[in-house]
Amino acid sequence: MIASKANRIVNAARGAPVIEFGLRRAQGEDAALLGARASYIAGFSGTSNVKAGIEFDIPLSGTHAHSFVMSFKDELSAFRAYAKTFPNNPTLLIDTYDVEQGARNAAIVAHELQEKGFKLKAVRIDSDPLAENSDLVRKILDEENLQYVGIFATNDLNEYKINSLQGHHVSGYGVGTENITCKPVSAISGVYKLVEDEDGAKIKLSKCKKTYPGKKQVYRIFDADGLFDHDILALESETIEGAPLLEKVVENGIRVSPRRSVHEIRDYALHQVSLLPEEKRSIDSQSKYETIPSAGLVALTESLSKQFGGQ
Amino acid sequence: MIASKANRIVNAARGAPVIEFGLRRAQGEDAALLGARASYIAGFSGTSNVKAGIEFDIPLSGTHAHSFVMSFKDELSAFRAYAKTFPNNPTLLIDTYDVEQGARNAAIVAHELQEKGFKLKAVRIDSDPLAENSDLVRKILDEENLQYVGIFATNDLNEYKINSLQGHHVSGYGVGTENITCKPVSAISGVYKLVEDEDGAKIKLSKCKKTYPGKKQVYRIFDADGLFDHDILALESETIEGAPLLEKVVENGIRVSPRRSVHEIRDYALHQVSLLPEEKRSIDSQSKYETIPSAGLVALTESLSKQFGGQ
Repeated sequence: MIASKANRIVNAARGAPVIEFGLRRAQGEDAALLGARASYIAGFSGTSNVKAGIEFDIPLSGTHAHSFVMSFKDELSAFRAYAKTFPNNPTLLIDTYDVEQGARNAAIVAHELQEKGFKLKAVRIDSDPLAENSDLVRKILDEENLQYVGIFATNDLNEYKINSLQGHHVSGYGVGTENITCKPVSAISGVYKLVEDEDGAKIKLSKCKKTYPGKKQVYRIFDADGLFDHDILALESETIEGAPLLEKVVENGIRVSPRRSVHEIRDYALHQVSLLPEEKRSIDSQSKYETIPSAGLVALTESLSKQFGGQ
Repeated sequence: MIASKANRIVNAARGAPVIEFGLRRAQGEDAALLGARASYIAGFSGTSNVKAGIEFDIPLSGTHAHSFVMSFKDELSAFRAYAKTFPNNPTLLIDTYDVEQGARNAAIVAHELQEKGFKLKAVRIDSDPLAENSDLVRKILDEENLQYVGIFATNDLNEYKINSLQGHHVSGYGVGTENITCKPVSAISGVYKLVEDEDGAKIKLSKCKKTYPGKKQVYRIFDADGLFDHDILALESETIEGAPLLEKVVENGIRVSPRRSVHEIRDYALHQVSLLPEEKRSIDSQSKYETIPSAGLVALTESLSKQFGGQ
């Protein structure tokens, strides 16, 4: 669920790195941890969740808070203190008081770092209007010959807001709340239903909630360009031309397929998404990916509907 | 957050018991556990989350799944087996195949239990149309002289759907997904900002995201009927007529206010909600509860805005 949302966000960012910032807004600690992992697999570049970074070997990345700036007598003193502690590629949050003056203060610190052989990596803007703010800040940084300093945007971002920032000067995104809670779809309507046991295939029949009976395999069908065209949901006993998607992981309580690293899973996931036709990947796509039941599955569903109907 | 959502649901149920069914859809295990606790505090009558029941002393309640029915050769055999194992006030799920026939099968088992000195507590309906289904099932049970058997409804319920079932024959509700993930508001936009340190009060100024500086107290103002009228957000140093809401819990690392049981917290919460005017409690209320900054807070905000502005 989170991986699907995260991948939409990554696609909207069109190559700009997206960092996972959701810890404080996740619905619990394990949601934050596993959500950071799912986001990385879906193409995020890193997380600010230190435990997730250590536990799952995900690149760590983050910035400081407004409260850090507010604990100093003025913003410039805060920036200097932060750059002194983290001289290697720091990111400075520039909108505690005023984003324009914040950009100028960051430029002062960038030049001071340069003199010591270090580089300011980016400034972070956390308040609207992000589009106009990014343009203003880019202008100030360019005037100061700081073309290499990036502009990192945060502020309740999602795939639609990121899309609307295209054409402005944001070079990276931090995404928290909307991704880690998977707004607006905070749960998948998946359920456990019995499809088969030692007595054979089973079916559930209530109105609008019919299930497909029997042990199944899913086959993927490709188009002439080698892209995903549709899937066929079939009985395991049927012979279907297509790539089977379900593979056995555990047999008799023992793992029979190798464990994959988070990086291998990420590479696999991003390759699979790249095989989805462009019109199905766009964030406002109305084009649904089809899954078609096989002839055998339709026949079994019909015969069991008769057998179990009205008992 | 969950408690607020849960209380809206409880209010919509107008006295009918609501059971928390969210474990499988919560965003992680600790979200399920703490969400069950929050729901109970907000007025739910129990939970199907066994760990939450044991850990927090919340009443446990639940029913069986469709897969239980499907694992038998027919529905009646499944109901008989369930009633044999749980003869004390069981609830039978009657819509695996056909809700009308399910109600008749449940009636057979209810009479069989009666002969043995036990009682069927309720039947559960988990599919739409819930309103019509509940009316149909009530009629069947009444014809069978089973007026005491309740009708328990589930199926992606929320406060609006429960409200629309008023006037039909549902006597209890099970609520999962929508409550435990707090749809559609899956996160509160609360943030940590520094308001005061040893150097005095602090403020954050970026556009649309200004903070109120200084150490505060919140005072509640009551109307002539003793109901909540509005709150005043004031500096701790101000003298305001009203009931102070913030109380000290920890001092120098030591708890200074007594720990309260989940039942005491629940009683307190429900009493407080009862003091909210009816028009603010209704689920489609447009009437906002007001919090007004005090004169002292407004003055401090203005003076700090000047001090920290444009630095």
